[in-house]
Amino acid sequence: MTSPFVAGPPVRIAGAPGGPLGGLSFAAKDLFDVAGLPTGGGNPDWARRHPVPTRHAWAVQRLLDAGATLIGKTITDEVSLGILGENPFDGTPLNPAAPGHVPGGSSSGSASAVAQELCDTALGTDTGGSVRVPASFCGLYGIRPTHGRLDLTGMLPQAPSSDTTGWFARDAETFARVAEVLLDEPIVPSSLPTTLVVAVDAFGLAEAQTAAALQPMVRRLSALVGYVREDLLAPPGLSVWARAQRTLQPWEAWQTFKDWLDRDNPRLQFSVARGLVAASAIPESERQWAALMRAEARARLAWLVPPGTILCMPTTPFPAPRRGLSLATLEPLRARISCLAAHGGLTGVPQVSLPGTVVDGLPVGLSIVGAPGSDAALVAVARALAMEMRR
Amino acid sequence: MTSPFVAGPPVRIAGAPGGPLGGLSFAAKDLFDVAGLPTGGGNPDWARRHPVPTRHAWAVQRLLDAGATLIGKTITDEVSLGILGENPFDGTPLNPAAPGHVPGGSSSGSASAVAQELCDTALGTDTGGSVRVPASFCGLYGIRPTHGRLDLTGMLPQAPSSDTTGWFARDAETFARVAEVLLDEPIVPSSLPTTLVVAVDAFGLAEAQTAAALQPMVRRLSALVGYVREDLLAPPGLSVWARAQRTLQPWEAWQTFKDWLDRDNPRLQFSVARGLVAASAIPESERQWAALMRAEARARLAWLVPPGTILCMPTTPFPAPRRGLSLATLEPLRARISCLAAHGGLTGVPQVSLPGTVVDGLPVGLSIVGAPGSDAALVAVARALAMEMRR
Repeated sequence: MTSPFVAGPPVRIAGAPGGPLGGLSFAAKDLFDVAGLPTGGGNPDWARRHPVPTRHAWAVQRLLDAGATLIGKTITDEVSLGILGENPFDGTPLNPAAPGHVPGGSSSGSASAVAQELCDTALGTDTGGSVRVPASFCGLYGIRPTHGRLDLTGMLPQAPSSDTTGWFARDAETFARVAEVLLDEPIVPSSLPTTLVVAVDAFGLAEAQTAAALQPMVRRLSALVGYVREDLLAPPGLSVWARAQRTLQPWEAWQTFKDWLDRDNPRLQFSVARGLVAASAIPESERQWAALMRAEARARLAWLVPPGTILCMPTTPFPAPRRGLSLATLEPLRARISCLAAHGGLTGVPQVSLPGTVVDGLPVGLSIVGAPGSDAALVAVARALAMEMRR
Repeated sequence: MTSPFVAGPPVRIAGAPGGPLGGLSFAAKDLFDVAGLPTGGGNPDWARRHPVPTRHAWAVQRLLDAGATLIGKTITDEVSLGILGENPFDGTPLNPAAPGHVPGGSSSGSASAVAQELCDTALGTDTGGSVRVPASFCGLYGIRPTHGRLDLTGMLPQAPSSDTTGWFARDAETFARVAEVLLDEPIVPSSLPTTLVVAVDAFGLAEAQTAAALQPMVRRLSALVGYVREDLLAPPGLSVWARAQRTLQPWEAWQTFKDWLDRDNPRLQFSVARGLVAASAIPESERQWAALMRAEARARLAWLVPPGTILCMPTTPFPAPRRGLSLATLEPLRARISCLAAHGGLTGVPQVSLPGTVVDGLPVGLSIVGAPGSDAALVAVARALAMEMRR
């Protein structure tokens, strides 16, 4: 089992004294610039061409300024293209909650480091599920903030219209402390929502055992929020939304990486290269359709989840798959995971994955989704729910 | 500049005493099994899955039995998929005749080792030009034997209907000594051809400067053979034959490697992965067309180059390109190289590349092509021409 940290000399940058995150340690996914260290991006041929940054990424600086101490850079799927966390160059970080299973990706090392209690929180990125999926698989709190909410300066981009910076924590209190700093907004009980939508299509797409295992969490959430109703997250089909996102996101990723590929002909895992090759062939007509579907999906969520309402759904359709499966076995799993994750990149809504559920001994997360900008309210729900559960 | 040998402990297996190749040293491309050493295939994830061989490949055993001493395993393009010799895992071997330029591939290290005088001869493989192109770029003798002539046991396959084992030498005498052993046939002057066909389409496809530089060699060859006429190698177009070969060969390579790709999801250079992905999508209708074109190409060569006739053509359309060019720059160069190499894999005819020509200080080869089975006659021409040139 592999360390969650990238190879290299030990990293330690002390946080500013007296800040609100004093005493906390954090790690940053190797997509975030840390001054003086190469940004590896999970690929041996990325840092070779990209200069060592001279400034910290915005999110790193923000946590340091608030008093948290940086203790390492963490393994990521190659240039964030992956959802399982198996990186043949840097290694596959241990999932301590499910040894022998993948940690989830692409923020694999950040989730692993927090889950292994090597740090209190860790920065990840979420374009198509890269914080939410490892949070679910490792049994952590994890957030994909509203798209555009956090400053992404110094973060290696993938698909800019979907890219976000998120973070992990083992407990809701730490999760909320970090949220107050990165969102620059207090987490207050008064922001709790009053309506809960249970996304029946999302529960339907999950494995039956996973959907059933999440019901106690749904009931606690229902009790906390009050009014509950069932509805569809994606009336055209979660697979149709996923198809739109799997058109828009890879095409943008191709735009982001094609000059690097052409110039450096880098080493890549076959599945990553295959994805990029497929992306390069996405026709304009498909992209036009996907852009229209994105507009419709945004309108759907604006209507379905207005301020004061949250939606709940399984973060992933099942717990972490085993490590080392063949591509033919993994491909349908990846596709099914995407069906539950695509709405994030497609619409930009914030989402928090909540731990606390276990299927056959493996963790799986329940997600809450809110209106754009309701990030603090989602974190408040996470904290309130944790307090309820402690009683 | 990188060593032509793969990393690892020094290799030395002495040849049998008293054989015809006594005193000669040789290297073997890392696609040939050497008992007790991993067969790396130019990729870090190949040997991991494939057991260390317990027997030497046929060609290795044959050279050892004849008295030659094995002194190393040489770098190859990944699983022989490449024509330039730039391997990001094992390194790009030095082309001592053209420093700063590629050595050619995929038998890059074998050509480099011989050109650097680190050994007398070296085994390569040629499916789509992998001996002929590095021979041309490094200024060496190199042979692609008749398809099916040599036993390929213990050689990592790529596209079996085109795969061959070949070898390199700096001088015609050594080249012929090795030929007698591997072909199991004496190289005798009585086998010299009596008709020379100059392939005007092939010279037309070469760069004008290269075609012009090769004329003195063509004149010496004409003087040696006697009767000379001009004709087309490929009436439908060399690019049409190349299209057929670039349909058949990658499809077979996909069949060879797809289970490995699925099971191990290996690291690959982007261009190699891209080629395999493209191969996986080649439709049945294209393959049917290409198979018909292969039959027509074989018939064309049987008529054009009967026993007693040889054809001459540039081995490559130009000398070695510079190292480190972008994929967008290399792609048209690769395609043009393929136009002059495709007839080999397509029809199975033997071909020898002859050194001795230089363009702007860089070597380029003149090739002679014969009827299937005329391998020894081509080697005899190479030796006779070298003797003429020494006078």
